[in-house]
Amino acid sequence: MSEPKNILRLGLPKGSLQEPTLELFKRAGFNIVVSSRSYRPSVDDSELELRLLRAQEIGRYVDHGFLDCGITGRDWIVENGADVEVITDLRYSKATSWPTRWVLVVPDDSPVKTVKDLQGKRIATEAVEMTKKYLAANGVEAEVEFSWGATEVKVPEMVDAIVDITETGSSLRANKLRIVDTLMESYPQFVSSKTAARDEWKRQKMETLVLLLKGALEARHKVGLKMNVPAKQLQEVVACLPSQRSPTVSTLASQEWVAVETVIDEATVRVIIPQLKSLGAEGIVEYPLNKVVH
Amino acid sequence: MSEPKNILRLGLPKGSLQEPTLELFKRAGFNIVVSSRSYRPSVDDSELELRLLRAQEIGRYVDHGFLDCGITGRDWIVENGADVEVITDLRYSKATSWPTRWVLVVPDDSPVKTVKDLQGKRIATEAVEMTKKYLAANGVEAEVEFSWGATEVKVPEMVDAIVDITETGSSLRANKLRIVDTLMESYPQFVSSKTAARDEWKRQKMETLVLLLKGALEARHKVGLKMNVPAKQLQEVVACLPSQRSPTVSTLASQEWVAVETVIDEATVRVIIPQLKSLGAEGIVEYPLNKVVH
Amino acid sequence: MSEPKNILRLGLPKGSLQEPTLELFKRAGFNIVVSSRSYRPSVDDSELELRLLRAQEIGRYVDHGFLDCGITGRDWIVENGADVEVITDLRYSKATSWPTRWVLVVPDDSPVKTVKDLQGKRIATEAVEMTKKYLAANGVEAEVEFSWGATEVKVPEMVDAIVDITETGSSLRANKLRIVDTLMESYPQFVSSKTAARDEWKRQKMETLVLLLKGALEARHKVGLKMNVPAKQLQEVVACLPSQRSPTVSTLASQEWVAVETVIDEATVRVIIPQLKSLGAEGIVEYPLNKVVH
Amino acid sequence: MSEPKNILRLGLPKGSLQEPTLELFKRAGFNIVVSSRSYRPSVDDSELELRLLRAQEIGRYVDHGFLDCGITGRDWIVENGADVEVITDLRYSKATSWPTRWVLVVPDDSPVKTVKDLQGKRIATEAVEMTKKYLAANGVEAEVEFSWGATEVKVPEMVDAIVDITETGSSLRANKLRIVDTLMESYPQFVSSKTAARDEWKRQKMETLVLLLKGALEARHKVGLKMNVPAKQLQEVVACLPSQRSPTVSTLASQEWVAVETVIDEATVRVIIPQLKSLGAEGIVEYPLNKVVH
Amino acid sequence: MSEPKNILRLGLPKGSLQEPTLELFKRAGFNIVVSSRSYRPSVDDSELELRLLRAQEIGRYVDHGFLDCGITGRDWIVENGADVEVITDLRYSKATSWPTRWVLVVPDDSPVKTVKDLQGKRIATEAVEMTKKYLAANGVEAEVEFSWGATEVKVPEMVDAIVDITETGSSLRANKLRIVDTLMESYPQFVSSKTAARDEWKRQKMETLVLLLKGALEARHKVGLKMNVPAKQLQEVVACLPSQRSPTVSTLASQEWVAVETVIDEATVRVIIPQLKSLGAEGIVEYPLNKVVH
Amino acid sequence: MSEPKNILRLGLPKGSLQEPTLELFKRAGFNIVVSSRSYRPSVDDSELELRLLRAQEIGRYVDHGFLDCGITGRDWIVENGADVEVITDLRYSKATSWPTRWVLVVPDDSPVKTVKDLQGKRIATEAVEMTKKYLAANGVEAEVEFSWGATEVKVPEMVDAIVDITETGSSLRANKLRIVDTLMESYPQFVSSKTAARDEWKRQKMETLVLLLKGALEARHKVGLKMNVPAKQLQEVVACLPSQRSPTVSTLASQEWVAVETVIDEATVRVIIPQLKSLGAEGIVEYPLNKVVH
Repeated sequence: MSEPKNILRLGLPKGSLQEPTLELFKRAGFNIVVSSRSYRPSVDDSELELRLLRAQEIGRYVDHGFLDCGITGRDWIVENGADVEVITDLRYSKATSWPTRWVLVVPDDSPVKTVKDLQGKRIATEAVEMTKKYLAANGVEAEVEFSWGATEVKVPEMVDAIVDITETGSSLRANKLRIVDTLMESYPQFVSSKTAARDEWKRQKMETLVLLLKGALEARHKVGLKMNVPAKQLQEVVACLPSQRSPTVSTLASQEWVAVETVIDEATVRVIIPQLKSLGAEGIVEYPLNKVVH
Repeated sequence: MSEPKNILRLGLPKGSLQEPTLELFKRAGFNIVVSSRSYRPSVDDSELELRLLRAQEIGRYVDHGFLDCGITGRDWIVENGADVEVITDLRYSKATSWPTRWVLVVPDDSPVKTVKDLQGKRIATEAVEMTKKYLAANGVEAEVEFSWGATEVKVPEMVDAIVDITETGSSLRANKLRIVDTLMESYPQFVSSKTAARDEWKRQKMETLVLLLKGALEARHKVGLKMNVPAKQLQEVVACLPSQRSPTVSTLASQEWVAVETVIDEATVRVIIPQLKSLGAEGIVEYPLNKVVH
Repeated sequence: MSEPKNILRLGLPKGSLQEPTLELFKRAGFNIVVSSRSYRPSVDDSELELRLLRAQEIGRYVDHGFLDCGITGRDWIVENGADVEVITDLRYSKATSWPTRWVLVVPDDSPVKTVKDLQGKRIATEAVEMTKKYLAANGVEAEVEFSWGATEVKVPEMVDAIVDITETGSSLRANKLRIVDTLMESYPQFVSSKTAARDEWKRQKMETLVLLLKGALEARHKVGLKMNVPAKQLQEVVACLPSQRSPTVSTLASQEWVAVETVIDEATVRVIIPQLKSLGAEGIVEYPLNKVVH
Repeated sequence: MSEPKNILRLGLPKGSLQEPTLELFKRAGFNIVVSSRSYRPSVDDSELELRLLRAQEIGRYVDHGFLDCGITGRDWIVENGADVEVITDLRYSKATSWPTRWVLVVPDDSPVKTVKDLQGKRIATEAVEMTKKYLAANGVEAEVEFSWGATEVKVPEMVDAIVDITETGSSLRANKLRIVDTLMESYPQFVSSKTAARDEWKRQKMETLVLLLKGALEARHKVGLKMNVPAKQLQEVVACLPSQRSPTVSTLASQEWVAVETVIDEATVRVIIPQLKSLGAEGIVEYPLNKVVH
Repeated sequence: MSEPKNILRLGLPKGSLQEPTLELFKRAGFNIVVSSRSYRPSVDDSELELRLLRAQEIGRYVDHGFLDCGITGRDWIVENGADVEVITDLRYSKATSWPTRWVLVVPDDSPVKTVKDLQGKRIATEAVEMTKKYLAANGVEAEVEFSWGATEVKVPEMVDAIVDITETGSSLRANKLRIVDTLMESYPQFVSSKTAARDEWKRQKMETLVLLLKGALEARHKVGLKMNVPAKQLQEVVACLPSQRSPTVSTLASQEWVAVETVIDEATVRVIIPQLKSLGAEGIVEYPLNKVVH
Repeated sequence: MSEPKNILRLGLPKGSLQEPTLELFKRAGFNIVVSSRSYRPSVDDSELELRLLRAQEIGRYVDHGFLDCGITGRDWIVENGADVEVITDLRYSKATSWPTRWVLVVPDDSPVKTVKDLQGKRIATEAVEMTKKYLAANGVEAEVEFSWGATEVKVPEMVDAIVDITETGSSLRANKLRIVDTLMESYPQFVSSKTAARDEWKRQKMETLVLLLKGALEARHKVGLKMNVPAKQLQEVVACLPSQRSPTVSTLASQEWVAVETVIDEATVRVIIPQLKSLGAEGIVEYPLNKVVH
């Protein structure tokens, strides 16, 4: 009876990544319902079994084999030294699509200019292992203490420097702190246990999942664009569209016009629409997308 | 002067169905604004006059002719014995698209195994008539008392069993209750008074409404899919698409490719996209829909 | 070094117009983030520099040249006598797409029937200049006092009449007030300083912005519609579609059918879909749009 | 083993009376905690067992003996014809200390002037029995239908009159409704089952409860007042204090002064303090009370 | 018929002072209910008629005689040049009992050191008149423009300096602004029209009101303290209590002890209790007060 | 210059204990304001300097001397092995006055009956050190892993047992978990560094603080009671009052009555008031207390 094999056990991150992760799965076609006791979300795919866990712990439980795979930050995989296989990066985050960074931070007016200046000092951080490795790699000896949170208020009173996470750096600037160095860029990764990665069915299931998740991720910044173009201008219109792949050009009843349809980055629409208009395109329509799979 | 005939008076349900009903009308193209005194919502269709009423009462007021038609649960139409004509079922609900069920419920550890075991017992419910008919049909005599709410806490202390509503049964399980039998499945229905159903203009207006509401309901679980396909693979690609109706195949400028566009269940996308890719489809794009009318 | 020229400084209105304005920019393709100190929103276009200011003050700061351009209500431009150039009207508002109106209001039972009856009376308003000009134009002398807010409660106890803003008039009716006259219809306008309007790069940038904003505004009430039509019915189907411009008609693999696609007002969909069905259209699909540029 | 007798099972009303009831018990010295499954609140008195039930149902369950006693509105006891013993009135309500009233209501412009004018009409109400008795007592025959809520919007469209609850009448006036007659004044009552009232321990326990509840109720509108008074003015000061009972007059170290302390209605403080000052009282201090037991 | 005289029309400030003002009245013994249309609050004193108005406007309406009296900030009385009689200062504010201050503010790094440096500059403020008078008194000519709000963001970009309100200055520091000078300290005042102040009944009514309001204000920072003291230590205990007036000393049944009771500043309790203990006081109890009238 | 000595640096716990701690200080007479950047609350005592830190970290920072003293849970002091001096226990908690307990927990249906059964198993906990010591003391070898939170969901899937915190045990029961053993009872403690405890001024300051905090804590469950008693009943009345210390008995003007005043547990009021009444006491008044210092 091979049925038990047909379940993929997947860990999803609680906390700041939870909402964007559920949103991403929804766009990928998976409806996840988190009930009040939020540890076991239900999902409308009977081949998946979900667990909602702290991002810090997912790597460990994938490594130990309690989970087949999981989505969690690259930072915590490294911090915990989890021995897992990275299936793919998934570059999304709570607010933006920037990666988060782990940075070495001191007060604006601190004498510390480089990591070397921390010799013999005290550093607070949630990522003790990452920080110790970083100091060792730089030949610096310093005391590293675990911070239970609100790390940024501890400097300079309690410690000389901190290693903390930031997205845009603006909160650090507001607190009059200065970034000395970047230890790591982090973003979500889809990771698998070594065992699951060798199981054919699980590998296949993970690849399908990743295909759909990346299709949904891709679509977040893409839009569909269609327009009617005078047949004789077609060449120039096509030339001005981004060339990822050639647009769909359909013949129309009226032979003097053709219909052109393409998918482009939302960010370039504002540049391209004025150009299209000046080339004679009419009835330009932009519409939203759910998924884009190349 | 035939003008008075050109108004359709429609009752909409307050309470848990209110938001999903207004949402459904919005997707169907009707913008309804519920002001603070919420009994008479306004709508951007001068042929409609809306009343917002308790689901329990809509059947009665349609039956009496105060309303031409209404949307309410099948359960309350039956409970009140309202003499109305069902125009169509509209299968939506507050949270899911499951029907709600009226179930006979006892504590997990109750000796009651079937309805027969309730002879001489006491039952609390909001649906007294429905429960009495059900007991009579099963040849059981028991005391049925009206419950003003929070019915599930009354068993076993106040009564031996309850007849209550459930969607998924999970809240019953959490309260350590057991379902003995299902009395009725319920879902919203669009009902008309006998008189309105015979009036040609009103009948026509109701049918148009229902066409648009069902179009919007259908679209909730559908998406549009388009892709470019090598002409020689077209046959196989079409074969793998669900066959509700044949997809739209457009010729392209490049004769080696065709554009294929179709509408499919969102739930099947995650199965089909990997297949399409393996058949050579490119530039697969999924986009959202507002309405689907066959 | 011509770089300083490549910045357009744009003022956006705080308060009731803030959310719809940010929403409009988002649909136009500009992502604006308002941080906690909300005066300088950031935007993902390095050629734009934004300021978030009270609608009342934007005209003044454009006039003075502190801003190149801004979006604010026509009313405040007139009230402040700001000497600016109107690039375009943008007809949106907080709740609806109606314009707001400045109206002369008295209690239901006031003897005042026309503005002439206000001779020697007292009027409270937030728009003192506009009211004074209006009275002068009507040859009426009356005392006009500045109201800091909650103007409608002051009549009849504190003053004989007020000049206040309204969208639908329903709040006035609820307060048993009567509109005597309308002083001005107002809606947002995109205005430029005289200097910026003469600068070629800024003029071009503003026109591109306006093109995209109007494309987004237009799309709010439009939807895309596509369907398959029996070739022999095409003429009749096309005739029943609104004629803004001819729909896109694509040939299909099956020659007995053609695909028709068009963009129409959402409000007309509910009339047209039943007609299309009766003309033999099949697979009618409605989808949402982000932008429509003619 | 007589222990089971030492439990008093008390029903408390859910809904609008819940918060003021819990607040009243807290002031009376009983801390009640309502957990998430709110049917069985816990209380720091091991002789009490609480049930939280709809006000409409408490009379029935006391009558049937499932509860020894309960607090609920007089209206629902009458409406349900519950055969219980009234231990005491407790005059508090959600917002004020006015009683609520059940009133017969028609639109402002209705021709109905007295209950007699309702012959042959239709009336909606949540209190069907109360209304039928009232009509019978007045020799009027009319159709009475149960209303599931929002009763006030049904007149005049659905019914000719309603019987509804009101505290101040202001909401009725705002809805342009007119009170024709008052059917009943209602306020909370502490009621006991006939059986419990005959049980000596339970009777004693209920009387202690009522003593403390009334002590807390009394204190809501009382304050303590103390002051120093010149001995020779004592007579006059005492004369000006409300005479419920004579104030506590303490001798002081200095024989020319005495200390006077009393408990008075908060509402009279603002009248009495100026008088006391003019009579020479000094160091007047007002302090809050928890309970007042005469 | 002298009855119309027996009404005092009192204006109360909306906005940030509204809640502390209503709270103060409640402690003074007046229950004010602000209904949804908040202009005419009701109060349980039939001799009072309340109006809730913007603080900026109350002085004007008292001056004009529409109100007999009002509570509003000293700043707005001065700004509007209202010709009213100040009955008393009432030193409370939204958050603290500090006065608010109107200050001249520039950016931290501005060259402006004193008001003199503003010659020929531009200043934004909500208090245009106050600022103009201040500049004139200092012999400085500068442009003063009315700011509709969010004044602090306008410097240095739009204007060179601002005149704005502050309580603690901390928000200014956070915005990197510097206070150059203080134009005025402000706090609420109870003001009367000249006419009302000459009316005997109204004058008397206002004085009673003020007595009770000040009694309540005083009590906010006072507590009652009572203790038993060995008779032989009485002298020393009394000496250590603040001497506003001599404490109440009561004889006790046991002649070796006396009871001492007094009212002291809450802020001094933490200093005094340890002293009292060391002097032999026992059973020290602190209790809250509602009003303190000397 | 001895001034620097006159500052006591005190750490307060963030999180679930924050609100009750600030509330306790307020009742003790210290007003603490937590600004948006919440690390350095301000307090109206210039001899105190506050830091708001995670409860887990306060012991460490007191031990290291960054803080003179702090309030934190006994559990974290033990867990971190902080070398501090306990000044006093302060028995309060977020919801109740029960201590919190660290308990060893397994699923209801686990075979684990005692700690001995955990040999070779895996345990998750936030208190790794405490758990390791406990296991060692019981001669059990098991794997202990740090849990980042939501520990209770990990059993039985991820681990065999957990060590977690509970107040009432009800959440454990709801999750179908069973308590095997209690590792520690915890409650807040006021701890001092060894250095600060030897500094005379700091020691004195801490003792005053503790006196006031305990006075406020004591008053939470006490009330004042006063009544008039017939002189001849005095003996019996006094006998029925709890005997902590003798009540204050004052002579009255009328020699047949005496005034009796005492402080008792709020929980006993409901027993005593009926007794007092039956002994002839009149005008019984209960009033709230802020502090009680014996």
